[in-house]
Amino acid sequence: MKLFDKILIANRGEIALRVIRTAKEMGIKTVAVYSTADKDSLHVRFADEAVCIGPASSTDSYLNIPNIMAAAEITNADAIHPGYGFLSENSKFSKICSDHGVKFIGATPEQIDGMGDKATAKSTMKDAGVPCVPGSEGVIDTLEEAKKTGKEIGYPVMIKATAGGGGRGMRVIRKDEDLDEYWDKAKKEAGAAFGNDGMYMEKFIEEPRHIEIQIAGDQYGNACHLSERDCSIQRRHQKLVEETPSPFMTDALRKKMGEAAIKAAKAIGYEGVGTVEFLVDKDRNFYFMEMNTRIQVEHTITEEVINYDLVKEQIKLAAGDKISKKEYFPKMHAIQCRINAEDPDNDWRPSPGKIQSYHEPGGHGIRIDTHVYAGYSIPPHYDSMISKLIAVAQTREEAILKMRRALDEYIIEGIKTTVPFHQKLMRNENFIKGNFTTKFLEEWDYKAEEL
Amino acid sequence: MKLFDKILIANRGEIALRVIRTAKEMGIKTVAVYSTADKDSLHVRFADEAVCIGPASSTDSYLNIPNIMAAAEITNADAIHPGYGFLSENSKFSKICSDHGVKFIGATPEQIDGMGDKATAKSTMKDAGVPCVPGSEGVIDTLEEAKKTGKEIGYPVMIKATAGGGGRGMRVIRKDEDLDEYWDKAKKEAGAAFGNDGMYMEKFIEEPRHIEIQIAGDQYGNACHLSERDCSIQRRHQKLVEETPSPFMTDALRKKMGEAAIKAAKAIGYEGVGTVEFLVDKDRNFYFMEMNTRIQVEHTITEEVINYDLVKEQIKLAAGDKISKKEYFPKMHAIQCRINAEDPDNDWRPSPGKIQSYHEPGGHGIRIDTHVYAGYSIPPHYDSMISKLIAVAQTREEAILKMRRALDEYIIEGIKTTVPFHQKLMRNENFIKGNFTTKFLEEWDYKAEEL
Repeated sequence: MKLFDKILIANRGEIALRVIRTAKEMGIKTVAVYSTADKDSLHVRFADEAVCIGPASSTDSYLNIPNIMAAAEITNADAIHPGYGFLSENSKFSKICSDHGVKFIGATPEQIDGMGDKATAKSTMKDAGVPCVPGSEGVIDTLEEAKKTGKEIGYPVMIKATAGGGGRGMRVIRKDEDLDEYWDKAKKEAGAAFGNDGMYMEKFIEEPRHIEIQIAGDQYGNACHLSERDCSIQRRHQKLVEETPSPFMTDALRKKMGEAAIKAAKAIGYEGVGTVEFLVDKDRNFYFMEMNTRIQVEHTITEEVINYDLVKEQIKLAAGDKISKKEYFPKMHAIQCRINAEDPDNDWRPSPGKIQSYHEPGGHGIRIDTHVYAGYSIPPHYDSMISKLIAVAQTREEAILKMRRALDEYIIEGIKTTVPFHQKLMRNENFIKGNFTTKFLEEWDYKAEEL
Repeated sequence: MKLFDKILIANRGEIALRVIRTAKEMGIKTVAVYSTADKDSLHVRFADEAVCIGPASSTDSYLNIPNIMAAAEITNADAIHPGYGFLSENSKFSKICSDHGVKFIGATPEQIDGMGDKATAKSTMKDAGVPCVPGSEGVIDTLEEAKKTGKEIGYPVMIKATAGGGGRGMRVIRKDEDLDEYWDKAKKEAGAAFGNDGMYMEKFIEEPRHIEIQIAGDQYGNACHLSERDCSIQRRHQKLVEETPSPFMTDALRKKMGEAAIKAAKAIGYEGVGTVEFLVDKDRNFYFMEMNTRIQVEHTITEEVINYDLVKEQIKLAAGDKISKKEYFPKMHAIQCRINAEDPDNDWRPSPGKIQSYHEPGGHGIRIDTHVYAGYSIPPHYDSMISKLIAVAQTREEAILKMRRALDEYIIEGIKTTVPFHQKLMRNENFIKGNFTTKFLEEWDYKAEEL
């Protein structure tokens, strides 16, 4: 299979570096793009070429399609890897790449639109036989209609933005009167965040776990799943810790969820790597939540347990290869802690600034994906995640102990980080027992814990 | 099985940190010892307690048995891990630990003496049916006797110090007259280096590979092997690069060498982890070289391909556990580059000093074991190895490509290191083909290569 000659990475930070690493190992040249705020980032240093695409503001740089396409043209890149976030699920960008003869290493515009619109996604999945949360058929236009649907589904329900993500526009509704209070607010929030105020409604799953299935598909109609990741440890719908296998998983459930995920992939003829996210209730019923048509932050833990590079797989699939990893034998346990430049003791406020002193943990079973170093200044303009710390061991218990010692060794001075939060979490009895839902962080007063 | 409460690590640098990490993950307290030159080393920072045992000179600190025993006593350590080098194969130290009721995590005095004296080791192995290099029966006393033995074995032969290691006292002898020139010199060198000028003689194996077998044994008479490591890339008998599996290995040869290594372990009732080193000639005949009754620098690559912590195994075996890993399925390929503070372009001269800037590679399949960091000053008193960089992938070809990109990312400023040497090696055609013997570095003019 003819691979690409040169890939432009339309992203920044750790994921840009992540893609550069794999491309290098595949003998493919790389082009970094960067905003003026990122000129000292490692993704700029380690790429073969680097092009400045604008000022600090994302809109003017990492979301600036004309500048990115110009960078691809002047460097003669034959493919673009969008990473996650930014333009990774932007159908217009996918189409423009295709129109310009540059391979977009991601989903087609149709797939992005189909899965990006939550209501459309759900109806596609229902048709394909993938279990979905009971909910409204498509967009709900008015408050009255919302109340009617709420009664039909049965409270509690959740209202969500059709174009949404990251919790914006979402509200739990426990009775009719909640709709009076929240309907307009949520619509406004959705409109402001996504430029689209369409709303839909779903049964609200109490005590849910967020368990997702990694999938891969090729252009010959093959699709496979690469087991699950449990991402229930979240704060306001932002994942903080991921692990595989899920402590809640059974062989029977994995089989069922895996089959559902493959159905989901095949329903849209998915090519590349992607993730089908499910909510799992306490009785192990599972419901399709959404599909991410891109590489995810947490793909790393799957790589560690299957000993396989998912970005490599993604690039090969984009070049027209067949799926190369069809079988999966989960023998190891991997956990990832997202290290953010945030102050968990101060309402998780972002903590950009200069890293004065820096030392990474190492040794057996430790992986780190980061773009920072001693002396690096974290710009205030972007996502606060600065590093992913991954521990792999033969059992969950050992992986937790390994993560604990690695966190204890991780020195990042000059800014506040989530390291102390994770240190406490890895000592929390309920976490250790695997006894948690997506509500865990709302209910746990980690600030009261001593280290 | 009752494990230890507190382990004192009688070593420094990366291996001290390595042992501390595993002990922490096992819930065992740790005591670091350090010379005044090492007060800022990470092994001191990350241990639960740290005791200064003397000035910079090894003789006065890391080889100072009374001070180390005093440190164990005041901290109430119930076990001592010696790492490698220093006191790890010192039978007197092993005995003193045992006499003081402190468990020495290593071999018994008898095993150390039995394997430490090369002539005795060889005769033990011959008796056990382990193939040995044809050679003299025990120590050769005089030049005349040496000449007689040389004729019997047939030139070329090698003369070696019975107490030796690291190449000191060794000479290749191709004819009688060489003995006239080298016999006295080699004896003197041996006496100066080891306090013992006993010499023996062996058939010199031309075009040899250094391939060793990792073994483990328990106190119930069980022993297993954990496959091989190829350590043929050496400079003056100092290993620079290790890999597993060996590119020269066949299934049949692995089976035979594994069985021989188990015989060797059982012959001395070996408990703990150890390594049986062999020379393998171009026809895949193999010959026992020596047995290291300790953890080795290169144990890391075996850990990566078997997904198992050998230091943990070592501690458990010392506590009386049975062997826990009996089967081995080599599915991955791992390579380790030793990063030394040396200038390969200037006769490998040591390059101690302050690390001004430091950035480690990371990502999928990369492991680093090191005790250094930005701002750390490498003291001039000890071994020059400052870091071990390990790459793991599904094939040898992929592991080399991964190592290449990791080396390209490794930034160590302020001192000279072996990184540029390794960068060239990973691009050398013969290395890539697996076409090398222990003579490789003598024959390759790496300084002439361009990066």
